[in-house]
Amino acid sequence: MRSPTSVLKRLVLGRPFRSDQLHQELLPKRLALPIFASDPLSSVTYATQEILLVLSLGGIALLHLTPWVALAVVVLLIVVVLSYRQVVQAYPSGGGSYEVASHNLGPTAGLVVAGALLVDYVLTVAVSVAAGVDNIISAVPELNSYRVLINIVCIALLTAMNLRGVRESGRAFAVPTYAFVAGVLIMVAVGLIQAVLGHAPVAESAHYDIHAEQVGLSSLALLFLLLRAFSSGCTALTGAEAISNGVPAFRKPKGRNAARTMSAMGILSIIMFSGITVLALVSQVKIAENTCDLVGFAGNCETDAQRTVIAQIAAAVFGGDHSVGFYYLQATAALILILAANTAFNGFPLLGSILAQHRYLPRQLHTRGDRLTFSNGIILLALVAALLIYVFAGSTTKLIQLYIIGVFTSFTLCQAGMVRHWNRELQTATTSAERRRIHRGRVINGFGACFTGVVLVVVLITKFGHGAYLVVIAIPVLFGIMVAIRRHYQRVREELTPDEASALLPSRVHAVVLISTLHKPTQRAMSFAKAARPDTLTAITINVDDAETRELQRQWEKYGIKAPLKVLESPYREITRPVLNYVKNLRRDSPRDVVCVYIPEYVVGHWWENLLHNQSALRLKGRLLFEPGVMVTSVPWQLRSSDRRDLERADRVPGDVRRGIP
Amino acid sequence: MRSPTSVLKRLVLGRPFRSDQLHQELLPKRLALPIFASDPLSSVTYATQEILLVLSLGGIALLHLTPWVALAVVVLLIVVVLSYRQVVQAYPSGGGSYEVASHNLGPTAGLVVAGALLVDYVLTVAVSVAAGVDNIISAVPELNSYRVLINIVCIALLTAMNLRGVRESGRAFAVPTYAFVAGVLIMVAVGLIQAVLGHAPVAESAHYDIHAEQVGLSSLALLFLLLRAFSSGCTALTGAEAISNGVPAFRKPKGRNAARTMSAMGILSIIMFSGITVLALVSQVKIAENTCDLVGFAGNCETDAQRTVIAQIAAAVFGGDHSVGFYYLQATAALILILAANTAFNGFPLLGSILAQHRYLPRQLHTRGDRLTFSNGIILLALVAALLIYVFAGSTTKLIQLYIIGVFTSFTLCQAGMVRHWNRELQTATTSAERRRIHRGRVINGFGACFTGVVLVVVLITKFGHGAYLVVIAIPVLFGIMVAIRRHYQRVREELTPDEASALLPSRVHAVVLISTLHKPTQRAMSFAKAARPDTLTAITINVDDAETRELQRQWEKYGIKAPLKVLESPYREITRPVLNYVKNLRRDSPRDVVCVYIPEYVVGHWWENLLHNQSALRLKGRLLFEPGVMVTSVPWQLRSSDRRDLERADRVPGDVRRGIP
Repeated sequence: MRSPTSVLKRLVLGRPFRSDQLHQELLPKRLALPIFASDPLSSVTYATQEILLVLSLGGIALLHLTPWVALAVVVLLIVVVLSYRQVVQAYPSGGGSYEVASHNLGPTAGLVVAGALLVDYVLTVAVSVAAGVDNIISAVPELNSYRVLINIVCIALLTAMNLRGVRESGRAFAVPTYAFVAGVLIMVAVGLIQAVLGHAPVAESAHYDIHAEQVGLSSLALLFLLLRAFSSGCTALTGAEAISNGVPAFRKPKGRNAARTMSAMGILSIIMFSGITVLALVSQVKIAENTCDLVGFAGNCETDAQRTVIAQIAAAVFGGDHSVGFYYLQATAALILILAANTAFNGFPLLGSILAQHRYLPRQLHTRGDRLTFSNGIILLALVAALLIYVFAGSTTKLIQLYIIGVFTSFTLCQAGMVRHWNRELQTATTSAERRRIHRGRVINGFGACFTGVVLVVVLITKFGHGAYLVVIAIPVLFGIMVAIRRHYQRVREELTPDEASALLPSRVHAVVLISTLHKPTQRAMSFAKAARPDTLTAITINVDDAETRELQRQWEKYGIKAPLKVLESPYREITRPVLNYVKNLRRDSPRDVVCVYIPEYVVGHWWENLLHNQSALRLKGRLLFEPGVMVTSVPWQLRSSDRRDLERADRVPGDVRRGIP
Repeated sequence: MRSPTSVLKRLVLGRPFRSDQLHQELLPKRLALPIFASDPLSSVTYATQEILLVLSLGGIALLHLTPWVALAVVVLLIVVVLSYRQVVQAYPSGGGSYEVASHNLGPTAGLVVAGALLVDYVLTVAVSVAAGVDNIISAVPELNSYRVLINIVCIALLTAMNLRGVRESGRAFAVPTYAFVAGVLIMVAVGLIQAVLGHAPVAESAHYDIHAEQVGLSSLALLFLLLRAFSSGCTALTGAEAISNGVPAFRKPKGRNAARTMSAMGILSIIMFSGITVLALVSQVKIAENTCDLVGFAGNCETDAQRTVIAQIAAAVFGGDHSVGFYYLQATAALILILAANTAFNGFPLLGSILAQHRYLPRQLHTRGDRLTFSNGIILLALVAALLIYVFAGSTTKLIQLYIIGVFTSFTLCQAGMVRHWNRELQTATTSAERRRIHRGRVINGFGACFTGVVLVVVLITKFGHGAYLVVIAIPVLFGIMVAIRRHYQRVREELTPDEASALLPSRVHAVVLISTLHKPTQRAMSFAKAARPDTLTAITINVDDAETRELQRQWEKYGIKAPLKVLESPYREITRPVLNYVKNLRRDSPRDVVCVYIPEYVVGHWWENLLHNQSALRLKGRLLFEPGVMVTSVPWQLRSSDRRDLERADRVPGDVRRGIP
């Protein structure tokens, strides 16, 4: 393993872990909160901004509606937190929405939830990283032209971190998450005190006017805009179910600890979101999707980006964009956002692995890599997220249009599943206290299902034209693929059930050795074929060039090789078809026989040497495997250049190879 | 062969040709001229223009120097034609410059010529097609924004035409070449008569002024600019050696017919080139590399292109850019240019095949495709040319900077080789008439060698900074690659010379069957392995998951399989290394034994199914081939989905498969 790629792999990943090192890494609440709640906590950095962006499409006049929209989001957040507190206590196994939906509503509902969650995990990575980079650029505006590159580097770092394994990344999380929460709370407190004392903070955009894109709105259009603003604000809820997926990682009593962490997350989210929204109004932040709509914007509206809302507030509260407080808040906001993407790096591969185990996804997603993480899932997630970032040029506002549809699909189905769960529980409940508890749970989840269902419809309608239709396509497509994969594996499994017939010995074995010229590799192939003592042994050659074929026949006699050399004519200079016909023919005469085709192959040390050899052999091999009753034996000849690679490999298996210690 | 790609292949190529249909397609002079001389004849369309482009860098005042530059080009053309008349008579075998140089100056010189020619063939395609498209755009200016696309479509058409075979393309050539020659001769005659009668044609750019990029030139700088203009004009000479490569395709007496065609080509070239240059001066054509340097240009100089010189002359002579004469000349000019690229499509694959036969290039370039053409060479040429066009955005002027260095390298070495040839001839000459003939030849070729050598130096110096350095890098790189390939093949050939040791039978054969789960494919692999009657037979499985391994062992006993099932531990969840160590170990105990590893493989009908299976098997197979004394047998199991493909294939081998008729 001393090849450059291996060295790189070891540098990024560290030493491999043995399978028996896999044990549950149990987390205390103070670590579980930052790991599983970084996503919902971090979304307060952009939730307020997204509300303002939509409202300002109607001009400054509409901004006074912000508090009502924010209030609706807070109510929704409370409902969702209460609902999921029920889920974590009822299903401490950590399957989360997928398990609740498939257990209570059947596998189809479960699969819809799975598809929705997979899509949303990808978007969590894309949106969180993009928003984090927004805040980096707010602090250092010169980086604006490297936006996409910075995004992709961040995703690469996250990927490397996650490939190294969960425990280390857990520790890496606690500090920035708490630092961010503390920073926001201090900012909110300081800002409010300033306002009360009559020195209300003033944002850099306070004096801007906004060129409204939608003017003279009818009341219906206004309602639509309000609902759209609400939909955008709902991004504050994303990731709420992360804790429900992580229950097994909690210390005992798992359910109760998870529920308490859930509540803590909810309370923190509400305080921060409300505080930021109030400060945004107090300091009169103005923000527009299209920077050129801002009347009074200082920079070049074509190329420069406006600062994020949270950056503007921080600058206003802490005394300008060179204050320590401003940089502290931007740094922690960027960090928590980029790390929030980690929630998805925990969730996506785990869900992928569960789905692969249930045969809905390829087997490769089920196996653990060198460091006991689900490497393939991590890499797949990173690639798709990076692609999205690239396609949408790292724009948070555009990416956010695709977001949260998946979340609300799974919220709704999960809550509906919980209602069924309680109905079933009710039949076995005996004490009245228990029945009361169940009734309460059913009311909470029933209300949650209805509320999130309505929100899902609102989100679908208001965001559909702005890009959400992509998700409406993606979820069913993913669903279809998963069903097809499952069906395929099922069909194959049935087809392959062992039976007596497959264990029958073939009556005779015909060995066929392919010869192009007579040299050591072909000599070796002949002697290996002979050593297998087949019932018949024939060497065959394809006549593409008469002169070469005659020379081969001459050599054949000169070296006195006993087996017959059969010349197959190939008027169209093909290799594959004549061999195929010959083999078919052998089997046609006696179908219970088996043909073993020996192909001499060069083994080379450099990839480019392959361009110089083996071309027809490879194609032929691929094709022969389609013939029933044929097996293909590669007889390798290691050219001297392959030694180099072999030495490298010997290097990696030192000492007693029997012990297999690397 | 009913897959979509095969159908497409047949549509483009037509039916395959049998090998015995290959016979020399002998050409009469009237067909040989258009086939081999379309390149030099077509270059008159841009040679004058390139001279004007360089001179106009110094402003309008320098244009009066044009006739002297053109005269130098004409002299050079005469020298080259005379020199090559000697070559075609002395070497009628058609190896051209490559053969002359390697025969007389040794293989190194030959290889330099080969490298230079390969580079120049590619540039012939790129430059000719780009210039052809220039003339199409001159007639239909709206196409300017599709320039690169049109270029690439033209290359694709040429490729398809050439893949179909030489004879048809020969016919396709005669008409447009003669039509173009006639058109130019008529245009020159009409234009000159108009001038003599006092109604001299006036080009659309006659009233333009040119904003000189280089003003106040020192006399040294002026000389340099003149030499640079001469270098650009030398493009009129490209392709002159095409006839010398094509001698075997002439009717007998081959040498004399080729020499006469050579003279005809030279005379036509000179008349057309001089005529166009004179008319360009008479009609006062102004042209600039950077359109924005033109004072008085009507269009938008950022996006619109200027018409080519020949287009401006045609419009002036034939009465405007909507006259029949104008369209006729543009159409034939575009056609002959695009077809001129065909000279390279004839030459490149043939040279590639000769080099491959001499083992300087990969074997694939030596074999003939379905239609008896050297398909791989044709495709390679098309790809590289298309890449160049893409990189240089289809700009003739930029591409032409890379051009003709290769041509003059091969001219010079070829003429120098001819001098050696005559010296050797002189030693065996007996009659004085013969000696006189040899002396004359030696003078011509000696003068040619000196003259082209000087031009090569001039071209190198004046074009180096404008892109020619790329060619100065490319030729030695190509040379190095060819030497390396030759050395590789040579080393392999020595390594593989048959000997007694390779024919020795191995003492024992150990069969190892890889088992993951027990199903039909593994049952089949076991029974095939048994049928080969090995000395030992072991089934091995890798323990990655304890539960799965125990289940396998249970099944193994349930089905009462006689061979022992050995479990290899893999604490790091790898497949390859444990198997490798096991095999190494078997061989370590008795090195003269052979291990045959049986790998059960699924054969699937759709490419995507491969994503769901076989991943570890493939990697393992590749790695095992590096082990000495190991052969790898794939035992395929055809899943039902593979039937579909099999039916398609049966379709293509109907009737009596023994006869192999497609």
